[in-house]
Amino acid sequence: MLTLDNVYKASRVLKGVIRQTDMIYAPNIKKGANIYLKTENLQVTGSFKIRGSYYKISQLSDKEKENGVIACSAGNHAQGVALAATKNGIKSIICLPDGAPISKVEATKRYGAEVCMVKGVYDDAYNKAIELRDKEGYTFIHPFNDPDVIAGQGTIGLEIIEQLPEVDIVVVPIGGGGLISGVAYTIKQINPNCKVYGVQSIGAPSMDTSIKKGKITTLSKVQTIADGIAVKTPGDYTYELVKKYVDGIITVTDDEIALAILTLLEQQKLISEGAGAVPVAAVLANKIPDTKGKNVCCLVSGGNIDVTILSRVIERGLKMGGRKANITIALSDKPGQLSDVSRIIAQTGANVTSVSYDSTDLDMNITDCYLRINVETRNFDHINTIKKALKDEGFEVFE
Amino acid sequence: MLTLDNVYKASRVLKGVIRQTDMIYAPNIKKGANIYLKTENLQVTGSFKIRGSYYKISQLSDKEKENGVIACSAGNHAQGVALAATKNGIKSIICLPDGAPISKVEATKRYGAEVCMVKGVYDDAYNKAIELRDKEGYTFIHPFNDPDVIAGQGTIGLEIIEQLPEVDIVVVPIGGGGLISGVAYTIKQINPNCKVYGVQSIGAPSMDTSIKKGKITTLSKVQTIADGIAVKTPGDYTYELVKKYVDGIITVTDDEIALAILTLLEQQKLISEGAGAVPVAAVLANKIPDTKGKNVCCLVSGGNIDVTILSRVIERGLKMGGRKANITIALSDKPGQLSDVSRIIAQTGANVTSVSYDSTDLDMNITDCYLRINVETRNFDHINTIKKALKDEGFEVFE
Repeated sequence: MLTLDNVYKASRVLKGVIRQTDMIYAPNIKKGANIYLKTENLQVTGSFKIRGSYYKISQLSDKEKENGVIACSAGNHAQGVALAATKNGIKSIICLPDGAPISKVEATKRYGAEVCMVKGVYDDAYNKAIELRDKEGYTFIHPFNDPDVIAGQGTIGLEIIEQLPEVDIVVVPIGGGGLISGVAYTIKQINPNCKVYGVQSIGAPSMDTSIKKGKITTLSKVQTIADGIAVKTPGDYTYELVKKYVDGIITVTDDEIALAILTLLEQQKLISEGAGAVPVAAVLANKIPDTKGKNVCCLVSGGNIDVTILSRVIERGLKMGGRKANITIALSDKPGQLSDVSRIIAQTGANVTSVSYDSTDLDMNITDCYLRINVETRNFDHINTIKKALKDEGFEVFE
Repeated sequence: MLTLDNVYKASRVLKGVIRQTDMIYAPNIKKGANIYLKTENLQVTGSFKIRGSYYKISQLSDKEKENGVIACSAGNHAQGVALAATKNGIKSIICLPDGAPISKVEATKRYGAEVCMVKGVYDDAYNKAIELRDKEGYTFIHPFNDPDVIAGQGTIGLEIIEQLPEVDIVVVPIGGGGLISGVAYTIKQINPNCKVYGVQSIGAPSMDTSIKKGKITTLSKVQTIADGIAVKTPGDYTYELVKKYVDGIITVTDDEIALAILTLLEQQKLISEGAGAVPVAAVLANKIPDTKGKNVCCLVSGGNIDVTILSRVIERGLKMGGRKANITIALSDKPGQLSDVSRIIAQTGANVTSVSYDSTDLDMNITDCYLRINVETRNFDHINTIKKALKDEGFEVFE
């Protein structure tokens, strides 16, 4: 059962196992509010998940411990359960869909789990885990819909209040709802005046939809760069806790998430995964009510982002923020055109990173072509200045 | 004068101004040693520099404060002095070479400095700063060769010993030598058994060269991705302190630095700049003596890396670690060749990210071409497996 006593108990059990992650003041993220970051991306295993799974496993009976545990996940829960089991000295089996990224499979093994690769997608891996549980007597560790798991995540709420007693607003990612259930429950018990907002990806708004409809709702598909919170169905336990303790749910787009990842990286030197960045995304997009002059804690829940995805996110974030632009110009066949274009761009202080010609469009004269230029810029005004300068000298610029 | 008393005094002065940055245990960086990270990349302004400049400015006379301060830098020192002056309520002028990155210029302005853009390179900006000092009566804040600046940086040594009393080895970046002078001096006063090693880029080894030659030596050029430690001449004050208190200087290559940046990013979710990553680079390259079973603290001095540089570093780091490869295959002109190559690569579990054809080599038959394929791989063994599989099916693969 979820009680404040159990959250305190979880906090004692977790001492020496997890890190009390830093609360970092982040004045450059947004003017007007005092933004703080609770950096669970710097937690052991790179996410908060170890808290819930460790506490859950520590509460198993000796018999259950002897049999071992099983879980199903392609992400942070896998690593959390693997390390939690290893630290408790018990066996763990993690079922992963065979398309899971190499890096996550390797990390799960490194934390000591036996990995069971299952042909198919998440649901297939889940079915396999349930089958093995029934056959072998393993205890299934649910990623969110379990009061002990929720109590473990709730320890973050205790730390937030200890590290930032004057906190006014806490912003938390929502996937299945385990993290926000624990944090909101804990904070509201201690300081009912503190607001707790949840953030979902607009491509996976299962809790938001469920709360709005007044009943647990399953989405037919989820699509977001925040894979850590791409959950089709919230839990019944978490649904009730969110309904009771959360002040509102906000949704953010993938572009807003990419910009948040880039902002955390540039301004705070922190790597966050998509799910970990959604609170900052909501703040940057001015979607959290009444933040002016308030102490706002964004829970950066994890940092396990694939580096190849990160590269793409950086690109996208730079474009979203007006820091990179593609400019397409129609050129006719006469000498010195590239030289003129280069000079004009240089005069605006922008930095050209690539140039390419395209002369394959059938609507053009055979001697004409498009010039595509990638430039690094300061902001959107700067991009408009460049386009205007090109147009002023007679070039045809495409929007 | 540099005394332990002054380092303690600096520590008191800095309280409430700077962050006591976290000491993070980093077990996944290297097996066999206990690696800890002192995360000055998470410091206010993104680097340790605020410590030295704030303490220096706080010690100025009222008259000097009234006149304001001047500094010259395109990097972390600029931001440190700007914020330190603003927090002390005094005026600051920062001379920057006009090629300085937009992001650094903007940050320096945001921290409250008056920015003076100087046509030319660093030396021109330096000369301008000295000229303005003499003309306007500003106090020049040296980036490293100053006992108060060094005492400020030495406060990191106090924190290391407080946060990790059982530390055996501390590894510190060296540029001009201000940081390591303060840290080594402080640590050796308190615990003379703790080893302190310095790390330079092999492309800018001015302190290493000077110590080896037994006199201060100026390099004719410096070339490294670790721009924060690309210093041509060490200070005389720092030279003497390094000679007396540092146990050894190690040099690392740009590729080793790129791999360290990537490791910190993936394993620890931390962004470091080149200069900040050199201690981890030295550890990863097994260049620090006798680390086995020891508590090793790597000082991650800063995180102000340009995101476009970061993108390139990620690419390079992935290649250095065998996580990405370019494979070039000679194809003759017959149908189904790409299909065969794709199948073979897919069977090895690698992920193709781009494919291009090149048929412009004059040594080839006009109907033949090179196929260049970029793949994501697990490690170097995986790359060799792919190449062998292609060769086994009769393809000509180039190394």
